[in-house]
Amino acid sequence: MAELNKRIVLAARPTGVPCLTDFRLEEIPIPALAPGEILVHTRFLSLDPYMRGRMNEGASYAPGVDLDSVMVGGVVGDVVDSRHADFTVGDIAQVQTGWQQYGIVQGDEARRIDPNLAPISTSLGILGMPGLTAYFGLLDIGQPQTGETVVVSGAAGAVGSLVGQIAQLKGSRAIGIAGSDAKINYIKSELGFAGAFNYKTTVDYHAALTALCPDGIDVYFDNVGGTVSDAIFPLLNINGRIAVCGQISQYNLATPETGPRLMWSFITKRLTMRGFLVFDFAEQYTEALTTLAGWLQAGQLSYRETIVQGLEQAPAAFINMFQGKNTGKQLIQVV
Amino acid sequence: MAELNKRIVLAARPTGVPCLTDFRLEEIPIPALAPGEILVHTRFLSLDPYMRGRMNEGASYAPGVDLDSVMVGGVVGDVVDSRHADFTVGDIAQVQTGWQQYGIVQGDEARRIDPNLAPISTSLGILGMPGLTAYFGLLDIGQPQTGETVVVSGAAGAVGSLVGQIAQLKGSRAIGIAGSDAKINYIKSELGFAGAFNYKTTVDYHAALTALCPDGIDVYFDNVGGTVSDAIFPLLNINGRIAVCGQISQYNLATPETGPRLMWSFITKRLTMRGFLVFDFAEQYTEALTTLAGWLQAGQLSYRETIVQGLEQAPAAFINMFQGKNTGKQLIQVV
Repeated sequence: MAELNKRIVLAARPTGVPCLTDFRLEEIPIPALAPGEILVHTRFLSLDPYMRGRMNEGASYAPGVDLDSVMVGGVVGDVVDSRHADFTVGDIAQVQTGWQQYGIVQGDEARRIDPNLAPISTSLGILGMPGLTAYFGLLDIGQPQTGETVVVSGAAGAVGSLVGQIAQLKGSRAIGIAGSDAKINYIKSELGFAGAFNYKTTVDYHAALTALCPDGIDVYFDNVGGTVSDAIFPLLNINGRIAVCGQISQYNLATPETGPRLMWSFITKRLTMRGFLVFDFAEQYTEALTTLAGWLQAGQLSYRETIVQGLEQAPAAFINMFQGKNTGKQLIQVV
Repeated sequence: MAELNKRIVLAARPTGVPCLTDFRLEEIPIPALAPGEILVHTRFLSLDPYMRGRMNEGASYAPGVDLDSVMVGGVVGDVVDSRHADFTVGDIAQVQTGWQQYGIVQGDEARRIDPNLAPISTSLGILGMPGLTAYFGLLDIGQPQTGETVVVSGAAGAVGSLVGQIAQLKGSRAIGIAGSDAKINYIKSELGFAGAFNYKTTVDYHAALTALCPDGIDVYFDNVGGTVSDAIFPLLNINGRIAVCGQISQYNLATPETGPRLMWSFITKRLTMRGFLVFDFAEQYTEALTTLAGWLQAGQLSYRETIVQGLEQAPAAFINMFQGKNTGKQLIQVV
C-alpha cells in the first residue's frame, strides 16, 4: 500500500455559490494503519447538499472542514487493508472518508455492505443516508395518514424521490416539486407520484398547488426552503406537519433572506414543524434499512443515480447540484 | 326578566388597531328562555387578544363576529333564570356569552363555578382559559426539564405570568419579556422569575437575552411574535421547543410583516415548533384545573387582575391591551 492517495481538499471558503478554485486536488502518501483501522479504496463518493454548510467557517450542526483538509463525505469501497478483526481484504465497507481515493477509518466506524443485497452504490442512496433521511423525516415527523396529501420539494433528488414513493406506499397522495420537465415526468410516470409541477417554469406556485391539492396539504417535507416553501404554508391543513430536511435554496446566499412571518399560521392551524438530522435516529437505522431493503427487493421503490466518473470531477458535479443538474443520487465513481 | 340587556356589538371591521367607533353599545330586550337554556347575568367579562382576530372578515381558527352582532368573549356571572336541570337561580356559571350584561346559553355549555374555591373571576384567568393555555402550552409542548431555560414573551400577561411560574415550579429557569419596568419588577419580585427585561427600553435584545440565558434557551413560549421572537431563535439550544400561543405584535398589522427565515436553524438545531389552541386539550381540562387549583391554594402561584368597571368601558380597555396597559388578566366588571 505504498501508493499515493488522490484527495480533494478545501482550498478556500466560498462566499455564495462555490467555485472550482475553492477545491484543490492533491496527492499524498497513504500512511500505515494503526491497530483497529481499515484502509478503504473508494468506489463511489456521495455528493450531498449538506456539504456546502461544512465549507463555512465554524460549526452549524457539525464542525466545518478546515482549510487544506479533505472534504467530508460518505463513501463505499473495498477494504484493501485491515487491522480490525471484523474486516478482511475484499470486504465492502461504507465509511465517511470523504473526497479521496483511499481513506483510513476505525473499523468500528465502518458499515459492512452485502454486495448481494443490492448494488453497493445504494449504500449511499436508497439504503444509506438519503434513504434513512426520507424514511424518518416522513414517517416519524410527517406521519402521513391514508388519504392525506404529502408535498415534497426537491422531489427528484435522492431524498425527495423516496419521500414521495414512501408516502404513496403508506396510502397518501404525494405531490412533488422539482426543477425540470424531465424530472416532473420522472416523478409522475416512474415514481408514481399523484402529481408534480416544475417550479422553474411555473409562475404561480399557489395556483399550481391549489390545483394539485384540492383537499389542502397535510404534510410538507421540505428540502429547499425559500419561495417554494412560502407557497406551501397557506395551503396547509389544520394539524399539518412540516419536516424540515434541507434548505438548498438558502445555502449559497451571502446574506440571509427574509420571508413572510409564519408563526400566526402555526396557531390558527395548529401546525407542528420539526427540523431533523438523520443521525438523530441512529438507534433505529437497522430496522429502517431492513424495511427499505424489503420494499426495494419487492419492486415497490425505484431510484436513480447520476454518476460522474473520476474524483477530479467532484467539485464540478457538486457545484452543478445547486443548479439541479442531478436526478436522484449524485455519485462520483472513483478508480 | 323583562329587563333590557346592554351589549356591545361589532359596528365596523377595523383596519389595523381597532378604534372606539368599531364598537357600538346598544340595548335590546332579553328573550324568553327555551328549554335547556340558562340566563346568566355577567359579573366579569374577559378581554383577550384573540378577540382581535374575530373582528376580521372570515375565519381564522374560528368564524369571525358578524357585523352588528355581539362581540364574543368569556364571562362569569350569576344564573338568574334556568330551564336546565343542572342549574338553579343563584348558581355561578362560566359561559361564552360575550360583551353583554345578560347572556343566554344552553346549560350544557356552561361550566359551574364553586365560589368557595377561589374568587369567581379566576374562572376567567388562572383557573380558566388563560391558566389552561399556560399549562398545556408549557407542559405539553414546551416540556421544560429541570435546569433548562424557559423564555416567555408577554410575561406579565394572564398567560405569560403563569407560564413563568409553572416553569419555575418544574425546576427550570424562567426568563420573562415584558413592556414596562413595573411589569419587570412584578415578574421578578412577585412571581419569582429568574430574570426579565423590558423590550420597550432595551435596544439590543440579543445582548439582554445572552446575559440572562448563559446556557442558551431550551423552551420559548411565544405570546407576541415579531422582533422579540426574532431575537430568541439564534439563542435556542439543540432540541429546543417553541410553543406558539399568540402573536399580539402582528394582530393589528394592515399588511403582514416579513422577517428572517428560520427554517435552516430548525435543521441545525433540530427545533420543534408547534402552534396550539387551548381547545385542543379539552379532554384534559379537569385534570389541569385540579392541578392549577392545588398550586393556587398552596400559595405556589400568584396572579393579578386589571379590572375596569362598566361594560361601556370594554372597547377602550380592549384597545389599551395592545399598548400593554394591563398587568395580568384584563377583566371588565359588569353590573
